[in-house]
Amino acid sequence: MKIGAQTHHGSAISASNASAIVVRGRDLAQQLIGRISFTDHFWLLLTGTMPTAAQRHILDATLVAIAEHGLVPSVQASRMTLAAAPEAIQGAVAAGILGCGSVVLGSSEAAGHFYAAIAAQTAAGAAPEQAARSMILEYRAARRAIPGYGHPEHKGLDPRARRLFAVAAEVGSAGTFCGIAHQVESLLPELIGKALPLNVSGAIPAVLLDAGYPLGALKGVPILARTAGLIAHLLEEQVRPIGFVLSHAGATAIDYDGEVPPDFEPTRE
Amino acid sequence: MKIGAQTHHGSAISASNASAIVVRGRDLAQQLIGRISFTDHFWLLLTGTMPTAAQRHILDATLVAIAEHGLVPSVQASRMTLAAAPEAIQGAVAAGILGCGSVVLGSSEAAGHFYAAIAAQTAAGAAPEQAARSMILEYRAARRAIPGYGHPEHKGLDPRARRLFAVAAEVGSAGTFCGIAHQVESLLPELIGKALPLNVSGAIPAVLLDAGYPLGALKGVPILARTAGLIAHLLEEQVRPIGFVLSHAGATAIDYDGEVPPDFEPTRE
Amino acid sequence: MKIGAQTHHGSAISASNASAIVVRGRDLAQQLIGRISFTDHFWLLLTGTMPTAAQRHILDATLVAIAEHGLVPSVQASRMTLAAAPEAIQGAVAAGILGCGSVVLGSSEAAGHFYAAIAAQTAAGAAPEQAARSMILEYRAARRAIPGYGHPEHKGLDPRARRLFAVAAEVGSAGTFCGIAHQVESLLPELIGKALPLNVSGAIPAVLLDAGYPLGALKGVPILARTAGLIAHLLEEQVRPIGFVLSHAGATAIDYDGEVPPDFEPTRE
Amino acid sequence: MKIGAQTHHGSAISASNASAIVVRGRDLAQQLIGRISFTDHFWLLLTGTMPTAAQRHILDATLVAIAEHGLVPSVQASRMTLAAAPEAIQGAVAAGILGCGSVVLGSSEAAGHFYAAIAAQTAAGAAPEQAARSMILEYRAARRAIPGYGHPEHKGLDPRARRLFAVAAEVGSAGTFCGIAHQVESLLPELIGKALPLNVSGAIPAVLLDAGYPLGALKGVPILARTAGLIAHLLEEQVRPIGFVLSHAGATAIDYDGEVPPDFEPTRE
Repeated sequence: MKIGAQTHHGSAISASNASAIVVRGRDLAQQLIGRISFTDHFWLLLTGTMPTAAQRHILDATLVAIAEHGLVPSVQASRMTLAAAPEAIQGAVAAGILGCGSVVLGSSEAAGHFYAAIAAQTAAGAAPEQAARSMILEYRAARRAIPGYGHPEHKGLDPRARRLFAVAAEVGSAGTFCGIAHQVESLLPELIGKALPLNVSGAIPAVLLDAGYPLGALKGVPILARTAGLIAHLLEEQVRPIGFVLSHAGATAIDYDGEVPPDFEPTRE
Repeated sequence: MKIGAQTHHGSAISASNASAIVVRGRDLAQQLIGRISFTDHFWLLLTGTMPTAAQRHILDATLVAIAEHGLVPSVQASRMTLAAAPEAIQGAVAAGILGCGSVVLGSSEAAGHFYAAIAAQTAAGAAPEQAARSMILEYRAARRAIPGYGHPEHKGLDPRARRLFAVAAEVGSAGTFCGIAHQVESLLPELIGKALPLNVSGAIPAVLLDAGYPLGALKGVPILARTAGLIAHLLEEQVRPIGFVLSHAGATAIDYDGEVPPDFEPTRE
Repeated sequence: MKIGAQTHHGSAISASNASAIVVRGRDLAQQLIGRISFTDHFWLLLTGTMPTAAQRHILDATLVAIAEHGLVPSVQASRMTLAAAPEAIQGAVAAGILGCGSVVLGSSEAAGHFYAAIAAQTAAGAAPEQAARSMILEYRAARRAIPGYGHPEHKGLDPRARRLFAVAAEVGSAGTFCGIAHQVESLLPELIGKALPLNVSGAIPAVLLDAGYPLGALKGVPILARTAGLIAHLLEEQVRPIGFVLSHAGATAIDYDGEVPPDFEPTRE
Repeated sequence: MKIGAQTHHGSAISASNASAIVVRGRDLAQQLIGRISFTDHFWLLLTGTMPTAAQRHILDATLVAIAEHGLVPSVQASRMTLAAAPEAIQGAVAAGILGCGSVVLGSSEAAGHFYAAIAAQTAAGAAPEQAARSMILEYRAARRAIPGYGHPEHKGLDPRARRLFAVAAEVGSAGTFCGIAHQVESLLPELIGKALPLNVSGAIPAVLLDAGYPLGALKGVPILARTAGLIAHLLEEQVRPIGFVLSHAGATAIDYDGEVPPDFEPTRE
């Protein structure tokens, strides 16, 4: 049974034979290993071309910005999974990556699409402020949160966001999308009644899109970055385990409030 | 219910407050974003210290070496998963990471432990060749494959392995573990009856351990590297989908050979 | 950092002490083990009450209907993952479950919500045909496929769907939702220009919702059912492995069409 | 590139054509849907034959016994993942399944293999007590825990274990493996210095193996059972969310004890 109407049967990323591996047209051993950085390689894998120095600098900056933020839910899920299943570290990494969803880490992708929609309107002739205003109102009418603004901890300003825009200015890549991001920020008090400063999930797509990073792979940046953070947490978990301490604390915080048979007392943790 | 006897309740990787995020003692926004590469950051997250230039160079080289090798099983699983569940790219990445197991990608970790066991014997006084000989025979007696040698495609020599050892020589980090890796290679024809050249999964731990990379996080290198490759494949899958072509080809290759009711003919694909 | 505004800190599913485990108010060992079926237990876990005989019969029928359909993409991903990572069968199961997404297996949930939206309109006073007509047109205007109709293999009629409606009639549970499902089927030729018969993903929510199964857990039925199928495939994979045969067939079906260095010929598989 | 030497290219579980689906030789719609239970279907998928009434009763009992035990680590990981990624419930289920590893839920499989090794010795002529004694000592010498005995909460006796053995006696299926399980229990005080009563992970394989359940699929029972429990928890999470409450409690329980820049105070949660 063939599902759908896929007619493509080609892939352009890598090929190999007995003596060589080719990645995006380059001989992996002769031209890439020991000659480019992993960040260069990620850009090359995604786009088929090597990044400029500015593009590499921006991609490095965004990956560094989002790799680690402490014992967030996905990290806890990952450490608990390793504690329960130490024989398969890839399972613990996978469990952590599954928490990179829309609520916490997916907003880079959502913000990127939001900015791209605004950019499409200005490309079609709308004035920048009008395009931003109109997209904010469209999201509000659909009861959609504006992605990329506000943060539960960094309420005043997200230090990572501010630094990323400064880096984009330093390398000279800041452009349309950084402008859109700030334009939106300036309109929020009027249009939604609250001042919500740009957070890292708004800054990341703004600086990456200005640098030419592909829109469809925006989610790959927090995912790749958090994989690095997860691996570090899992190394720490192997030598200073806290996975079951975390789960014990979680279970203790929740009361059982269902029915009980007569004379049953739950264990008080 | 508290499982196990975990008494640690500390973590040393990251902390934050409303205005700053600290990662391994450094202020993320002020000292790291836009100042270090993602590879530097990975080393810092793992070890708490910044890598030397040689350490960064080796880590970059190993990540680049193992990130991509075409439509391998984990990449196919990932692309099929995205085709079936396009609403959650993190699920497709996770599915690909789950294939980073002992048979295909876990042998870097296994080879690292193998080399470390040999190094422990030499540190305890055994001669290098004797330590290698004895560990190979111990693995053989336990019917364990010697990890890091031979490859189904690169039968003559794994070009990635040769290049990685050359890079280690270039930066001057090659040492005990590179020596052990080659010592083992030289003994295999005699002890197992076959010449199996070093492959990339033997080269990676050898060069990393000589550079001071932590043994317990060896598996993190193929996992992090392959995450980059998976994200590139998933971007390609979004624009040139082949997920269902892959599954159709797989299903066509397998015959149903179970029982059938009378007069039932399976669809011939 | 506390994310969001969750104020609930209770759970009503299970509690335990040193001598007893309570599930939904019943003593697990005394009242449940050996006294109820696993299907009964699933209904109890979900709803807090035991199913009637008709409810159990319908839930059994839907689980049996959707558990297995051959070497579909999620099963292939699962078997490939076990072949690559045999040390962790839970990783292979997880990889298969990640393919239970919107395109292939999530349409039970989508169809359930579609039918529920129509039912809400009739509950508010609209005539049944008008409510169905209006919801089909709303989906069409939003370019959304009508979930639950048509199938790439079972083009005439999905035998599982027909049987499920017959079972619902047998136990006397067929009602509003079965009516809506058939009402929609009758309108599709006129409204979308094609006759698309009910498939299993339309039948499952129709019969379950008429039986009182909770709307929010509809996706749990294909997920639980496919877990059973995956475990059977993974047992077969351990004794008659085909995981790497599947991946070899998939890779063979795809041509590399990217750039190559001069004189490079990919391996022809 | 073909990995390994797999020559099988057949599968015997399911086939289909445009009008019928066959599962283990039976027509799914005509012979199975609405005629057998999901538990019957699971046994059929695994073995190719329908279970006897006793076999079904035992399989139901074991699935019911292990499906739910409160907010254990895998359930917490699953609920946190849904809170972070509500758009993909299959990701949250997968995250929970990844926690079904060797430490917590894999011991059914380990105990089954332990009992099977003892049974193999008695089949080869050893006296039952001697075979048990010898295998316990072999595990101890290899510093392996004896799987299936003791429990952090149910220290006196695991009520689920006692009930499962009673059910096996009721249906008349108790035999060799139940005997081995109790034989081992009686020897532990002498051989390991502690009285560790049979727990549910020892009882499950004992009763299943006596009923004829396949050894290689033992891990499938806790995995399938816990999938049902996870789906119930995820339904509750959608209406009474606690995922972020759990993660907040976990993070609060852990102190940051790494380096800090001067004048940095972490947020006290």
